[in-house]
Amino acid sequence: GLDMEFTGLHSVFPVNNKPSLFDSPAEWYLKARQSVQRFTISQFGLAIFSHEKPNKYVVHSYNFFIFPSTFGATDPEFTLSASSIQFLSHYGFDYNKFLKDGIPYMNELQEKSLRQYLLAGSWKVCSVLHRDIMKKAIDEVTSWIAGAKEEETMILRDLCGFQMFEVQLVLRRALQNVWTQPLGDNEVMVKKVSPQHRRLLENSPHDPCRKERILTSARGFTNLFQALVKAKKPLVGHNMLMDLLHLHDKFYKPLPESYEEFKRNIHSLFPVLIDTKALTKSVWKDHPFPRVSNLLEVYEVLCSSDLNPTDPMCPVIVLASGCSRYAVKSSPHEAGYDAFLCGSVLLKVAHLLLCKSTGGTAEADPPFSEYLGVLVKCLNQVHFTGGAVSSINFSGVDVPCRRPPLLVVHVQGWRGLSERHIYHELKTLCRFHIQRLSENQFILQSNKFKHIRLALRDYKDHPHLRISLYRRWRHSPHVSCLLRVCSIVALWSLVAFVLGGAP
Amino acid sequence: GLDMEFTGLHSVFPVNNKPSLFDSPAEWYLKARQSVQRFTISQFGLAIFSHEKPNKYVVHSYNFFIFPSTFGATDPEFTLSASSIQFLSHYGFDYNKFLKDGIPYMNELQEKSLRQYLLAGSWKVCSVLHRDIMKKAIDEVTSWIAGAKEEETMILRDLCGFQMFEVQLVLRRALQNVWTQPLGDNEVMVKKVSPQHRRLLENSPHDPCRKERILTSARGFTNLFQALVKAKKPLVGHNMLMDLLHLHDKFYKPLPESYEEFKRNIHSLFPVLIDTKALTKSVWKDHPFPRVSNLLEVYEVLCSSDLNPTDPMCPVIVLASGCSRYAVKSSPHEAGYDAFLCGSVLLKVAHLLLCKSTGGTAEADPPFSEYLGVLVKCLNQVHFTGGAVSSINFSGVDVPCRRPPLLVVHVQGWRGLSERHIYHELKTLCRFHIQRLSENQFILQSNKFKHIRLALRDYKDHPHLRISLYRRWRHSPHVSCLLRVCSIVALWSLVAFVLGGAP
Repeated sequence: GLDMEFTGLHSVFPVNNKPSLFDSPAEWYLKARQSVQRFTISQFGLAIFSHEKPNKYVVHSYNFFIFPSTFGATDPEFTLSASSIQFLSHYGFDYNKFLKDGIPYMNELQEKSLRQYLLAGSWKVCSVLHRDIMKKAIDEVTSWIAGAKEEETMILRDLCGFQMFEVQLVLRRALQNVWTQPLGDNEVMVKKVSPQHRRLLENSPHDPCRKERILTSARGFTNLFQALVKAKKPLVGHNMLMDLLHLHDKFYKPLPESYEEFKRNIHSLFPVLIDTKALTKSVWKDHPFPRVSNLLEVYEVLCSSDLNPTDPMCPVIVLASGCSRYAVKSSPHEAGYDAFLCGSVLLKVAHLLLCKSTGGTAEADPPFSEYLGVLVKCLNQVHFTGGAVSSINFSGVDVPCRRPPLLVVHVQGWRGLSERHIYHELKTLCRFHIQRLSENQFILQSNKFKHIRLALRDYKDHPHLRISLYRRWRHSPHVSCLLRVCSIVALWSLVAFVLGGAP
Repeated sequence: GLDMEFTGLHSVFPVNNKPSLFDSPAEWYLKARQSVQRFTISQFGLAIFSHEKPNKYVVHSYNFFIFPSTFGATDPEFTLSASSIQFLSHYGFDYNKFLKDGIPYMNELQEKSLRQYLLAGSWKVCSVLHRDIMKKAIDEVTSWIAGAKEEETMILRDLCGFQMFEVQLVLRRALQNVWTQPLGDNEVMVKKVSPQHRRLLENSPHDPCRKERILTSARGFTNLFQALVKAKKPLVGHNMLMDLLHLHDKFYKPLPESYEEFKRNIHSLFPVLIDTKALTKSVWKDHPFPRVSNLLEVYEVLCSSDLNPTDPMCPVIVLASGCSRYAVKSSPHEAGYDAFLCGSVLLKVAHLLLCKSTGGTAEADPPFSEYLGVLVKCLNQVHFTGGAVSSINFSGVDVPCRRPPLLVVHVQGWRGLSERHIYHELKTLCRFHIQRLSENQFILQSNKFKHIRLALRDYKDHPHLRISLYRRWRHSPHVSCLLRVCSIVALWSLVAFVLGGAP
């Protein structure tokens, strides 16, 4: 199970970047991509479900605060949206843990430039603070080394994070007769050595400043991401499309421009995706559960013995000792808790489906592969909010929805009408998504055939609003503009013909 | 005294937006403006110096955490840069106070759209959290009101910030037979009333939901900014140019495109500016102080009795009771502390200058206007980092520096040379700012005449690098391109002439 908290969802920049219900998945992707490039992940929740004992799953759930890696020549920037800050604050998010103690991470492109930076051996200051700390360290060492004997040592204190590496790299490069070694997390020992000794030490495989070791440190959380990719385990999320975009962008590669390429990449990284939102939406149809979609509510419905009578065969889910507080108290929108909920919902729904498919005679303690078997229709189907498709298929082509037709409203004798007025006029009848087509025409979209029928019937004789089915050929402004151009061309041909025949 | 901490200084977006030493103030302004639009103020320090007793100034110093106002239809976004986060973290900044409890503020443009939003009376959800809270409140009230009698009341709990207003506005608009009233900071009392009673209450000047009251709340910290503007007191900062850009953008109006308009606006808002960085730079010339420029170091130099012998006439600066911790322990880069340092440095330097101008016979307890008198050359001169001018003059035209001439390096027989190579080659001699002019030419800039002389002398006979004075006419690629075009045109004219004469 996996869940993430972000610093923002859909950016208001650039203008008109907000997704609309009319967007196809590819259109939505291009807009969301711009937001993903601006915002970042503040918390990464991972819940690992292990089938340890018969019919029992043990969950290890983790909350990682992560923060873009600051090692190297670039100074990462990211955006916060006020509404996301308020949302997370409401659920008790600790910004100091995120911004002060976040674990670094980088994608493959950033790793490549860090590699080049380390190879080039140049050292670029990108912050005043670092420059001051470096300057102080260099001053201390140069004034000490003049009077020091070989094998004498001194200690630099109060360093933190990547400063530990940077100080050592800079000192070794500047002075051929020193050696450096980290002492704990915040101190570096500097030793005066002979150049021969120095060469020996430099070639030791145990040097903590070897390039590969530095890269492993700088990669930070990305090491865990890569382990996840290698494990090829099913990845479970709830409404996880945005999570997948961030996974790709932050830990793998910057999001490609092509939506299809994004889908292919995610599928090759994570061949088995399960979205519990898409899953429950499709299962709810056949079960008498309340139609909740919020993750915690779904979990509570599935756990409630009234709605979901206890079945002795249902797998028992136990939280490991380090994360038992989740068993006592719900912590919605804490990434580790939501990740735990995702995995639990999946197991419970899979068990329901398995019981149903076997007519209640499921064997005790079925292997997980049997659960995957009954989920087969939902694998790699990720929930999509919008009219064009109901889910995105990561293992193939997206299947378009059978959608109710669009309506068009012609306004007559009611000037200055906006989308908002139309919305208020219609809202007692039904809810439509409304978009202006021209000066006096608006398109209405609804997901319900019933609403379309109601609107057509009730507005048949309205004095100002005439509602009819939208026909692309007749109503699209592009098409009618084309028709007008055609007729103008035809007119001119006629004029030319007449004039041509005149003399 | 005033000081601010920001979420970032110079953005790396858009590309090539980093200020260079070659920038004129107007060029610098256009780049900085883009960064100011992205970043925001996280902490605002204000130290008010009152001349309360003879020769004694009492300081009230305040630290305000501020956060863009979230009331209305927009969801503000701002950017953080990792280096600024690390910088502030190093000095103990508390991000929870900034992001969870920041005081709201808005500039005049934002206030105007909020005013229109309130007038329009429509209500737009811009966050999932708000929508859920509103929905819950409306559900509670509608299910209660059906069975309630007139004058009965109920209480809505767990509201915070602007939700207090939003809930009341929405309920009053939806239901003609309720009245609402805030109870403390987190609760709203809802009362069932008759429509007549409701009309009476609505017209009461004491209604806490009157538009002007809501606007005052939403303006938040901007009310204090406006009081500062009205007070017309001298405003003291250290290296305060960036602070002035943010003041204009966040509390007054979005930064104009024109640099001159920005200067005029700031001058009319704050007619007396004093930048202690520009001030000390000009005073240091005539005093035997160490050339420190960091604010805390400047303050310590001025306080040290060795360097600045105690003068019984020097005004005593006393911290008020609420902020006495600043007297015990220095807290650099805490905005309130730095604001206190600014004002103190100003008073101490002004006293030095006054003593000097009167030959040590200054009267006891001079009025502040006498201090302003000796500072006259430095008033409204704000420090500028760059070669073009040494300070920006907010009360007139900027005076260009008498700058050392630029040099140009011709590279011969040394391929693939970059700015970095040139820098390393020259750095033992002196530091230059280097910019590529063409394939094999680089411009060197230094602020010191001495370095120019040294470089010209030492590289006279270098095998690969020829250094000479830069002449715009000869070296600019535009000019030499123009010359080449001219010569081509001339050649073609000749050809045409010859051909024309041929037959």
